Amino acid sequence: MFINIRVTIILMVKIINVGLIGLGTIGSGVVEILKNNSHSIEKRTKINLKGVCDLNEQLAKRLNLDEKIFTKDYKDLINNKDIEVIIELIGGYEPAHTIIIEAIRAKKHIITANKAVLAKYGYEIFEEAQKNNVNILFEAAVGGCIPIIKTIEETYSSDNIEKIYGILNGTTNYILTRMSEGMSYEDALKKAQELGFAEADPGFDVEGKDASQKLSILASLAFDAKIEQEILTEGITKITKKDIEYAKEMGYVIKLLAIGKKQNGIIELRTHPTMIPQNHIFASINDEVNAILFSGKNIGEIFLSGKGAGKLPTASVIVTDIIGAGSRTGITERHFEKAEIVDMGKIKSRYYLRFSAVDKPSVLAQISKILGDNSISIAAALQKEVNKDVVPIVIITHEVLEENLAKAVKECNNLDVIKEEIVIIRIEDLR
Amino acid sequence: MFINIRVTIILMVKIINVGLIGLGTIGSGVVEILKNNSHSIEKRTKINLKGVCDLNEQLAKRLNLDEKIFTKDYKDLINNKDIEVIIELIGGYEPAHTIIIEAIRAKKHIITANKAVLAKYGYEIFEEAQKNNVNILFEAAVGGCIPIIKTIEETYSSDNIEKIYGILNGTTNYILTRMSEGMSYEDALKKAQELGFAEADPGFDVEGKDASQKLSILASLAFDAKIEQEILTEGITKITKKDIEYAKEMGYVIKLLAIGKKQNGIIELRTHPTMIPQNHIFASINDEVNAILFSGKNIGEIFLSGKGAGKLPTASVIVTDIIGAGSRTGITERHFEKAEIVDMGKIKSRYYLRFSAVDKPSVLAQISKILGDNSISIAAALQKEVNKDVVPIVIITHEVLEENLAKAVKECNNLDVIKEEIVIIRIEDLR
Repeated sequence: MFINIRVTIILMVKIINVGLIGLGTIGSGVVEILKNNSHSIEKRTKINLKGVCDLNEQLAKRLNLDEKIFTKDYKDLINNKDIEVIIELIGGYEPAHTIIIEAIRAKKHIITANKAVLAKYGYEIFEEAQKNNVNILFEAAVGGCIPIIKTIEETYSSDNIEKIYGILNGTTNYILTRMSEGMSYEDALKKAQELGFAEADPGFDVEGKDASQKLSILASLAFDAKIEQEILTEGITKITKKDIEYAKEMGYVIKLLAIGKKQNGIIELRTHPTMIPQNHIFASINDEVNAILFSGKNIGEIFLSGKGAGKLPTASVIVTDIIGAGSRTGITERHFEKAEIVDMGKIKSRYYLRFSAVDKPSVLAQISKILGDNSISIAAALQKEVNKDVVPIVIITHEVLEENLAKAVKECNNLDVIKEEIVIIRIEDLR
Repeated sequence: MFINIRVTIILMVKIINVGLIGLGTIGSGVVEILKNNSHSIEKRTKINLKGVCDLNEQLAKRLNLDEKIFTKDYKDLINNKDIEVIIELIGGYEPAHTIIIEAIRAKKHIITANKAVLAKYGYEIFEEAQKNNVNILFEAAVGGCIPIIKTIEETYSSDNIEKIYGILNGTTNYILTRMSEGMSYEDALKKAQELGFAEADPGFDVEGKDASQKLSILASLAFDAKIEQEILTEGITKITKKDIEYAKEMGYVIKLLAIGKKQNGIIELRTHPTMIPQNHIFASINDEVNAILFSGKNIGEIFLSGKGAGKLPTASVIVTDIIGAGSRTGITERHFEKAEIVDMGKIKSRYYLRFSAVDKPSVLAQISKILGDNSISIAAALQKEVNKDVVPIVIITHEVLEENLAKAVKECNNLDVIKEEIVIIRIEDLR
């Protein structure tokens, strides 16, 4: 792997010619920043926008772009020998994937904010880039303007990263923040949509898929792992205002956390609503803000937070990547090793369980027995007095094997006295 | 300033030969990490330790370093043509400054964790590096393992940084954390010394000088400014348990903040104990942890925190800098412009004032009159009932010009009814 050639070079990269594909929100932001910040950018690098591609030429007109650099055919940019860097900002799997691969083969550095294409085709893209000796930069793909890719990449080289926790999806964090103030899930989602924080079809966000895609990218880099398995992914759609209230009473806040751990070579990955202590720094991350906490053997914990999305924050990071494109050794030198991902049944966690039971004296006894029979011991219990036939019982367990918990919950769900599906929320006792 | 030469280079720097000067805590940590992490480091770069210098050869023996690479004379390293990077870890002004300048003239890249030498001789060092086409990397000099230098450097190039707030000194943050739990200043300082977080002579830390040196480095980078004036610096020695309690009652926490702002080309810099809202993320930064919040016009707020000191965290960052030394365009391309620093009298702030007054009915009226005469309006007041002759009166002001406040406080201090010097703490209403 290690090439024994010594080449020391003092860099003098002063002009970078770029081609931009996709003039949507982020793409327009990049054009604006290149115009408005040219003074401070040029102190480091002159960025020439040599070509711009979009299917909609109105977008180019609106930005007052020179007609001569505009095209509807991305191949014009790839065939342009002057262009050294291609910025892909169209998102989604295709044609983004095809464009990136073709651009790499034409020896262009790639900058992208496309987490989907990286989560699905990342290893192919990195390998292709390596063969062609170009860089892939994608700081904007995870955590918006938080410099997490760079920080993990650099930490990786001098330390062993052991844990990553992330609030990686702004939509769900916005919804959970509103719910913690008393709003219902439905109203919070509606508000998020009105403010542009949630898509008309919010499934990808609220079901945790967006966060899991980002986790898979971070975990690859941090743990040096080729992650090809599906990541356990649970969204926030089952969380109710009641759960948030009970969590609060017990000193917890509920956040959608993406979690990655590596211990003795074995990797654990999961995205799900998580109860965390309310005095933990994550509890203060509200609205659409993203945050990442990771820990290394030498460095201890590092925490980063900032805007996870938005036109100018994201575009600003793309511009930073352009400046870095010619001068940084990127991800392409990495050789990800096939990773062993632990089966979810084998993880250990503490759990919050909410039972909706008929109001009979024997109920708690029946539940406790099942839990006990499955080696689950109870850390705290809360039974609410309500004037209804169905009463909520909340139980917090001590640490237990997930497969034991799943078995117990299944048995409890079969009890006649249990009237609704039991709500399960994992707890992380972050300090 | 802009050189119209186009040089695009794909980097293949695979071996870096380094010379290390100073085998104290951090230096030993670097040697350990290079040994223990060679596997993952070599995936990116092979780091050869070609020379090590210290006045104490026992330190080299303790680390099992090859005798052939050890020297007591730093000139041996500077004259060694194989060495490309010099790591300066002796600290202080001299001989660190001389060594760095000589190494630069011998065309070596420089890595240092020495905030003092950078705060005092930074511009000279950067200029010399520019002339000689070498890099200066100093991530470890501010905020320990928090990647703040890189992040500010990169943000600077694509955005306008407007504000920086930092908890940059671990010793004082440790002391304030213990005091917020009820410990006295003296006991907290003693505990910090026992744990190795505070020096035997803690003056440099507790008087805020360490934080101000770091602020001057960050502000230079963020605001592109040559900062040659003294920064207003107040330490924590006058803060009492009482002030921390009253602050808490009013919803605030006291932290030693380093503050930098740039508005319309004018820069404001200061380091002092600051009252911040207790639900702000800074309030959760406890013990010896450091944290930095900065905001850019495009990116919004970015928050970073992590260990600000310690052997392995700091050494780990030095190793990251080594890997970056050959492949990053560093600080040396910057041309800092002479900056206009605002006079402290002209800043506006809200203030916490604690008066120790005799228990007479007219006191509050006398104080209020003086404040009013100086255009200072009162936002909140708190008079404590105590069984003593001297009673504490706490006043929180609305925003006011510092020079007006200073004048009013001087007048109040002259009142017969005021028995001790008035305590003044500035408030930042961070959200």
